[in-house]
Amino acid sequence: MPLTPEQEAEISALRTTSQPTLRAVSEGMEAHLYKAHQVLDHGFVRVIDYMGDDAAICQAARVSYGKGTKSVQNDEGLIRYLMRHWHSTPFEMCEVKLHVKLPVFVARQWIRHRTANVNEYSARYSILDREFYIPQADALAAQSVVNNQGRGEVLQGEEAARVLRYLRDDAMTAYDHYEAMISQDGQQGLARELARMNLPANIYTQWYWKVDLHNLLHFLRLRADAHAQYEIRVYADAICAIVADWVPFAYKAFEDYRLGGAVLSATALEAVRRMLKGEEVTQENSGMSKGEWREFMAALK
Amino acid sequence: MPLTPEQEAEISALRTTSQPTLRAVSEGMEAHLYKAHQVLDHGFVRVIDYMGDDAAICQAARVSYGKGTKSVQNDEGLIRYLMRHWHSTPFEMCEVKLHVKLPVFVARQWIRHRTANVNEYSARYSILDREFYIPQADALAAQSVVNNQGRGEVLQGEEAARVLRYLRDDAMTAYDHYEAMISQDGQQGLARELARMNLPANIYTQWYWKVDLHNLLHFLRLRADAHAQYEIRVYADAICAIVADWVPFAYKAFEDYRLGGAVLSATALEAVRRMLKGEEVTQENSGMSKGEWREFMAALK
Amino acid sequence: MPLTPEQEAEISALRTTSQPTLRAVSEGMEAHLYKAHQVLDHGFVRVIDYMGDDAAICQAARVSYGKGTKSVQNDEGLIRYLMRHWHSTPFEMCEVKLHVKLPVFVARQWIRHRTANVNEYSARYSILDREFYIPQADALAAQSVVNNQGRGEVLQGEEAARVLRYLRDDAMTAYDHYEAMISQDGQQGLARELARMNLPANIYTQWYWKVDLHNLLHFLRLRADAHAQYEIRVYADAICAIVADWVPFAYKAFEDYRLGGAVLSATALEAVRRMLKGEEVTQENSGMSKGEWREFMAALK
Amino acid sequence: MPLTPEQEAEISALRTTSQPTLRAVSEGMEAHLYKAHQVLDHGFVRVIDYMGDDAAICQAARVSYGKGTKSVQNDEGLIRYLMRHWHSTPFEMCEVKLHVKLPVFVARQWIRHRTANVNEYSARYSILDREFYIPQADALAAQSVVNNQGRGEVLQGEEAARVLRYLRDDAMTAYDHYEAMISQDGQQGLARELARMNLPANIYTQWYWKVDLHNLLHFLRLRADAHAQYEIRVYADAICAIVADWVPFAYKAFEDYRLGGAVLSATALEAVRRMLKGEEVTQENSGMSKGEWREFMAALK
Repeated sequence: MPLTPEQEAEISALRTTSQPTLRAVSEGMEAHLYKAHQVLDHGFVRVIDYMGDDAAICQAARVSYGKGTKSVQNDEGLIRYLMRHWHSTPFEMCEVKLHVKLPVFVARQWIRHRTANVNEYSARYSILDREFYIPQADALAAQSVVNNQGRGEVLQGEEAARVLRYLRDDAMTAYDHYEAMISQDGQQGLARELARMNLPANIYTQWYWKVDLHNLLHFLRLRADAHAQYEIRVYADAICAIVADWVPFAYKAFEDYRLGGAVLSATALEAVRRMLKGEEVTQENSGMSKGEWREFMAALK
Repeated sequence: MPLTPEQEAEISALRTTSQPTLRAVSEGMEAHLYKAHQVLDHGFVRVIDYMGDDAAICQAARVSYGKGTKSVQNDEGLIRYLMRHWHSTPFEMCEVKLHVKLPVFVARQWIRHRTANVNEYSARYSILDREFYIPQADALAAQSVVNNQGRGEVLQGEEAARVLRYLRDDAMTAYDHYEAMISQDGQQGLARELARMNLPANIYTQWYWKVDLHNLLHFLRLRADAHAQYEIRVYADAICAIVADWVPFAYKAFEDYRLGGAVLSATALEAVRRMLKGEEVTQENSGMSKGEWREFMAALK
Repeated sequence: MPLTPEQEAEISALRTTSQPTLRAVSEGMEAHLYKAHQVLDHGFVRVIDYMGDDAAICQAARVSYGKGTKSVQNDEGLIRYLMRHWHSTPFEMCEVKLHVKLPVFVARQWIRHRTANVNEYSARYSILDREFYIPQADALAAQSVVNNQGRGEVLQGEEAARVLRYLRDDAMTAYDHYEAMISQDGQQGLARELARMNLPANIYTQWYWKVDLHNLLHFLRLRADAHAQYEIRVYADAICAIVADWVPFAYKAFEDYRLGGAVLSATALEAVRRMLKGEEVTQENSGMSKGEWREFMAALK
Repeated sequence: MPLTPEQEAEISALRTTSQPTLRAVSEGMEAHLYKAHQVLDHGFVRVIDYMGDDAAICQAARVSYGKGTKSVQNDEGLIRYLMRHWHSTPFEMCEVKLHVKLPVFVARQWIRHRTANVNEYSARYSILDREFYIPQADALAAQSVVNNQGRGEVLQGEEAARVLRYLRDDAMTAYDHYEAMISQDGQQGLARELARMNLPANIYTQWYWKVDLHNLLHFLRLRADAHAQYEIRVYADAICAIVADWVPFAYKAFEDYRLGGAVLSATALEAVRRMLKGEEVTQENSGMSKGEWREFMAALK
């Protein structure tokens, strides 16, 4: 239950208060404004504000006086060209502000993307809620045996049950003691900035996160990727769906050139050329390491 | 004449095309949208888009679900508190996109503010217009005799006339030759990316510049300052007037704490304390250098 | 015990392996290299590398061909001038790389300083050690009654004892279960990236942190301040001592103009002027709020 | 003639003043320190300082206590892995400081790379030298007829001669008038900050530029590229040669994965798969635009 009835009422109020503006308006994004898209068990992503649309990308690229767009077809072609040739500045001309509720261990990965603005709920100043991320059964994965930084099979039976018991019980105990330490009932009460250190990394925090479209797409390329940790990937997936409605041309180009594309090294390109000539290319005669070869094969599959 | 009739018509069209939005709207800023505020002889500043208002600063500081503002009085107090204690992140939650036309030597100073997004008119791709900054008579200042990096008295008579003649004639000659070099009439025509090197630094360029409010205020503090070069200061002044309409509380706090305030060093604070006790404090017994003492005296005057 | 005997041996080996270099060398910094300065119960700060010294600040400010320094006196004056007038770029020309071990809740505050490079020990890839921050008795403070974001009196007696018991016991339980969950002894073993979510925010992490001198001083101004949380302030204090040995002129100027200085608002400057004229200025007739007045009085004391 | 005898002497003095250090030392980079590598007719690139080497990349990736390197083979493998998987932070742990002399129109492109530190020679404060970039005959290219942003054939005969005459004569006139305007001989003398506006964009400026290895490689990928303007590409090429000596493993991986590699879109990958199956793929049935197809064909050639 990510939102209380009071919060839902506040959101409904905002969604019925439309005002006229002379700015660029994205119909697709207006439909998302303020709504909470649920992610994980208690998290969400909400669009608080945005600037620009597909046309604004073209307008900036052309340094226009007016709307700066030509035909719709022309605009899509320009956006594809800009994406293909790594022109980043026109995409920086769109901006989005999100309200995100997420577990602390996800927040710690997320914050490594530095080119963004963040206001986090302060646990020095305020009291955190008793909300913890507890994985669904099918997200309870074993350590991968081939990849030190990944997941393997889903845990089963008693092992899975014990993990869930530990996560739930330890969270409840930690939070009980957090409350007991800060309580001012019959005692002084520990400073909040100290008491919070007892809370585990699956507790939920929340923040306002503002980022331009170029840096957002970079974030999505890394975090909507199959190698990203599942718990951040579901946030990236939720944001991808929002971006697709906000700037459809830019998102489509992003899917083609980034999400669905691949970087081939000079060595890999040479292997492709040899294969196209009919040569038998193997890992051994390719000049690639086993890891590179595996990734190369995956890209061609 | 910064705008052609066609450009004026494009702007008028945009200013009559209002659409409903659920986003935060700043009435003060809507009145500025798209209009060209003239600066220098051929330059301007135009607001292309904006995100947020005073309330959005408070909303982010409070990580709110709804509007996040309380009473208007409360909001102003919070904004003043945030400004006084150097909280930068809530101010980063507002963003503005400007279209600026400016001489190249001003653009070179401006671009040193790195935390902003820029799309400049490309002289590799396009042909620059024949527009050059020629100072007004009262801006034609001599080199300062006390400050290596400043201006002194205004030039007079024949000296002033000769300067203006040089600036005008050299600009015209350079542009004539620029045109002659790129012309494809009866010749191949030099590449634009090469021909532009003949153009002087008072030619006008233009760009889209997008920046958050925190970084914009930092820019304004340095560039609306009496020590900034006049030709960039007039742009900063024009933007100050816009920001005052956009986020009135934040701008007022900025005027009080930044533009009108002063940083006193530990040594200067000690001098104030001694003066308040009735001691006679002089540069010699203050521990300050002559330059520091002069600036200290100016702050107290 | 922040370092094992093996780690101490590695550090000793590095400290005896001197090599010739043509680069600028700071004798004060060479004495610090690789040594662990203990902070809190298990943390430390270690200098891994550095670039530049006081002279390099002047050399860059002068865009010199050679050493770029003039007399030592001249250099100190230039550095003071640059600091006083907020010239940031010459200070950016020095760089330092630190290895820091710190509790996660401190790391979360630290990382908000974005203009720095960070490599953190990965709990997706590796197993964290059983090391937790447990405050000393005199750091066990109550919530402040005047400041929502601060500490009051030190807790006493049974209340203090209970807090320490909770922190220690919950940390041990959480770590026991972390180990039990990732164990591959007779079971699959939970993925490390998931198991870590059970660990509280007082567990230690570590990272390489590289930052330029300008941004480091900004960090120190905010974090060596009396309003910063004690647990990050002790790290800032340890770094201050290192910087004082690395770039003594810059550090002295920083102490005078930043750490020991104060920003007075236009309103506060006006109050000083009136006080110097002999007027009786009170909070009521000053135009300042109670909070501003309290801070103003503190600056003048 | 980029350096005066006095400057050469200063550099020689620095190159003979070796001091012991405990820091990581790159032998390849020590050989470059302070030397001016000539670029264009009056420009140069000089290494002023550096931090780190190949081993430092691995040390940071491993968050090591000691040197952090394992076998040399192991280190190269790790560096290739990090480069292939877009891990940027370990490469950010190396830093270099360059002194660059370059034409203003090149400086304007260069500065668009924002994540770097810059101290430029101030034409508000100092007087610029009479040095202008005049292209060699073989760099005097016509505007491309296929690409709005590129060069075509080399100009010939009278057209080429006239271009050179314009560039030389206009530069000399502009500089003569610059000198005449700032002269204080029998007149007040125009402020330098104003007089500089008369100087064309092929005048030389210089700066100290400091950047981390990750951002430097990004700069080199874009600027050592065949699509970059020739006049900035020659600087990028000179820096490539330096980086190859500084961090040989990282540079080799960069050549393979970035300089020599290619990004294939989802559509292009699908075309490769079809071609490998023996299908006849043409632009028309590929789903690519003409521009994309041309680039795709170039990558496979």
